[in-house]
Amino acid sequence: MKIIVQKFGGTSVAGLERMKLVKAKVEKKLNQGYKVVVVLSAMAGETDRLIALANEFSKDPDPAELDVLLTTGEQVSIALFTMLLKDANIKARSLLGFQIPIHTDKAFGKARILDIDTEKMMDLLKTYDVLVVAGFQGCDFQKNLTTLGRGGSDTSAVALAAALNAEMCEIYTDVDGVYTTDPNVCSKARKLQKIAYDEMLEMASMGAKVLQIRSVEFAKKYNVPIHVRSTFSDEPGTLVVKEDEIMESVLVSGIAYDKDQARITLVDIYDEPGIAAAIFEPLAAYDIVVDMIVQNPSHEGRTDLTFTVSRKELKDALKIIERVKDEIGAKEVFYDPDVAKVSIIGVGMRNHSGVAAIAFKALKSENINILMISTSEIKISCLIKEKYTELAVRTLHEAFGLDKEPTVENN
Amino acid sequence: MKIIVQKFGGTSVAGLERMKLVKAKVEKKLNQGYKVVVVLSAMAGETDRLIALANEFSKDPDPAELDVLLTTGEQVSIALFTMLLKDANIKARSLLGFQIPIHTDKAFGKARILDIDTEKMMDLLKTYDVLVVAGFQGCDFQKNLTTLGRGGSDTSAVALAAALNAEMCEIYTDVDGVYTTDPNVCSKARKLQKIAYDEMLEMASMGAKVLQIRSVEFAKKYNVPIHVRSTFSDEPGTLVVKEDEIMESVLVSGIAYDKDQARITLVDIYDEPGIAAAIFEPLAAYDIVVDMIVQNPSHEGRTDLTFTVSRKELKDALKIIERVKDEIGAKEVFYDPDVAKVSIIGVGMRNHSGVAAIAFKALKSENINILMISTSEIKISCLIKEKYTELAVRTLHEAFGLDKEPTVENN
Repeated sequence: MKIIVQKFGGTSVAGLERMKLVKAKVEKKLNQGYKVVVVLSAMAGETDRLIALANEFSKDPDPAELDVLLTTGEQVSIALFTMLLKDANIKARSLLGFQIPIHTDKAFGKARILDIDTEKMMDLLKTYDVLVVAGFQGCDFQKNLTTLGRGGSDTSAVALAAALNAEMCEIYTDVDGVYTTDPNVCSKARKLQKIAYDEMLEMASMGAKVLQIRSVEFAKKYNVPIHVRSTFSDEPGTLVVKEDEIMESVLVSGIAYDKDQARITLVDIYDEPGIAAAIFEPLAAYDIVVDMIVQNPSHEGRTDLTFTVSRKELKDALKIIERVKDEIGAKEVFYDPDVAKVSIIGVGMRNHSGVAAIAFKALKSENINILMISTSEIKISCLIKEKYTELAVRTLHEAFGLDKEPTVENN
Repeated sequence: MKIIVQKFGGTSVAGLERMKLVKAKVEKKLNQGYKVVVVLSAMAGETDRLIALANEFSKDPDPAELDVLLTTGEQVSIALFTMLLKDANIKARSLLGFQIPIHTDKAFGKARILDIDTEKMMDLLKTYDVLVVAGFQGCDFQKNLTTLGRGGSDTSAVALAAALNAEMCEIYTDVDGVYTTDPNVCSKARKLQKIAYDEMLEMASMGAKVLQIRSVEFAKKYNVPIHVRSTFSDEPGTLVVKEDEIMESVLVSGIAYDKDQARITLVDIYDEPGIAAAIFEPLAAYDIVVDMIVQNPSHEGRTDLTFTVSRKELKDALKIIERVKDEIGAKEVFYDPDVAKVSIIGVGMRNHSGVAAIAFKALKSENINILMISTSEIKISCLIKEKYTELAVRTLHEAFGLDKEPTVENN
């Protein structure tokens, strides 16, 4: 049994005409002899509508009840789409998360998938040619409904593809693939034919919102090939695959950016064991994610510490820092909400030196000051003033020759 | 543990302000020491909106998928209302049909409740003071979602009250009780303090849409006292109880009417065994409900047969009759969509003769011709031309003295 998973996002299911396009994509795979598992998001705008409704009823909506509310969005999508398929005499039925079941932990609003029981689905695939599954949702072992967080339908799709041993997980969206950078910022951005899981992870964790990060982690872990492509075209999109399936030996695959950054600097704190914990543990306890961290060399037992958080969490982070300020001996606390992170990403940089040098030189040529730097094996990130973001992206894109097709052919 | 079930209809949950009134009703019972099981309908208009959406996607929406779609209406209501309760520090949680579970048969769109597992609910009531249950929905034993038909939330509430051995099932609605007849038709209509299950059944199966019929059958079977009352007032409404709890010895409790009637007459058919089956079995196979049936005395082995169906099913019924016309030897088929049924209802008429005589005399005094008559132990129904409906209701209401409080006091 050849199985393919096809996931369609909110804009792809927004109304009857759009859903007819989705139906055509499904039929194409049926004609190729596949059994198709379709994963749908809520119709565009529906989740926001439901969240607004919840906020009308409660200043701080109960997370468990919010999940009960939000899961209705996908439920509506799968029921309507299955009706459409059945009208075309396609053997199809809908499946809600709890009916499969897709078991998750109890972290309402951001649950993680623990296991997927494939027995029922495999059995249903003997009778049905298409199973239409509600994305974004699961249930805990007590049958409480849970959701997987924004973009969670991607993770639903990849997890199902892994569990069902599907040949491919197609993610249909309103863009036609993964680009070397944001085409809205850089007109020379180029669609990538292939990208490695690790590169996609770095891209996803930054501005490139094509795929939910967790879905890429899942795909990497279970080696599920993902094809990111457009609902509104027949062109191939971008394959997200294992690194060794990418033959081109490019240094850098893409430039990403993230404007949701704010910088906090603690001046002249004690430089002794336990100080970092005293700062970051209370932040973690409040679910505040710290991104970049830089500590200056110590001077007479004292040092400065700078880190970044999401801009919308800056206020909460500062409150917490204010509480631990004395404990860590900080003389002053500075902050700057007007910063952005620009990243150069590529598995190729592992084996090549000089990437950082090229990047710094390019930014310097435009007089863009680098406020912080952090590096990983396949990424170099620079924190800069927000107003230079677009300029920095375009400059780096050109400096690494991303506007040109790679000289070594893709396989 | 004192348990009370409170059911609120669509108009009672239509928006935040209305739900605050619902919350006040719940709090009142909490203050009286009850654990409260709240059963909610979809917000007014929501079910119709979803049905319209389904009809946009399919000319004949798949019943199973339609139930997947429609159950979202109640899901939204219970999530929002539970948020409201939790904001007021009330220990509450929502429950969907499948989470309880409320098991039904597989008759999508009109499922019947087979059993309710109370173990989980009783256990939850140790922790929570209020359980907010989605009305109208259940699931079959394969976890497929089902709905109980229009007004099904009443049945959900009564079934839960029976299963949980609740003291009372309060049905809150936008009218303040059960009336002797439709107040829109007869200005002298009077609110009843009590009504017997059987009378309520007859009223419900006619125009009086206060309660879903099946909920009354359920209440009668399990002897669940129902209190029909208004969400928008603190006045007591009407108690629906066992006959022997009603002390007043009135002849007639109410006058009901039903304009959803159409009459079909088969002229000069064979009068032999099997003919009725040849007519009514194909109608039943298409789920067309036949209401009144009258057969004229046979003459030379031939007879006329007249019956009524719901007006919206007339077209389908005629198609079926056309098919069996030759088989039953019908010379002609007449039909009349402009008829209505007026009924006189009262458990008291069991022990009194003369009710029919009073009714016929009253109608005759207004020159209203009776087209068909059917009687049960506690009801006399007359089919008349639709245009006389209101006149007939008012005439009968007065003839049986329903505008005056009964001379024997209610207990």
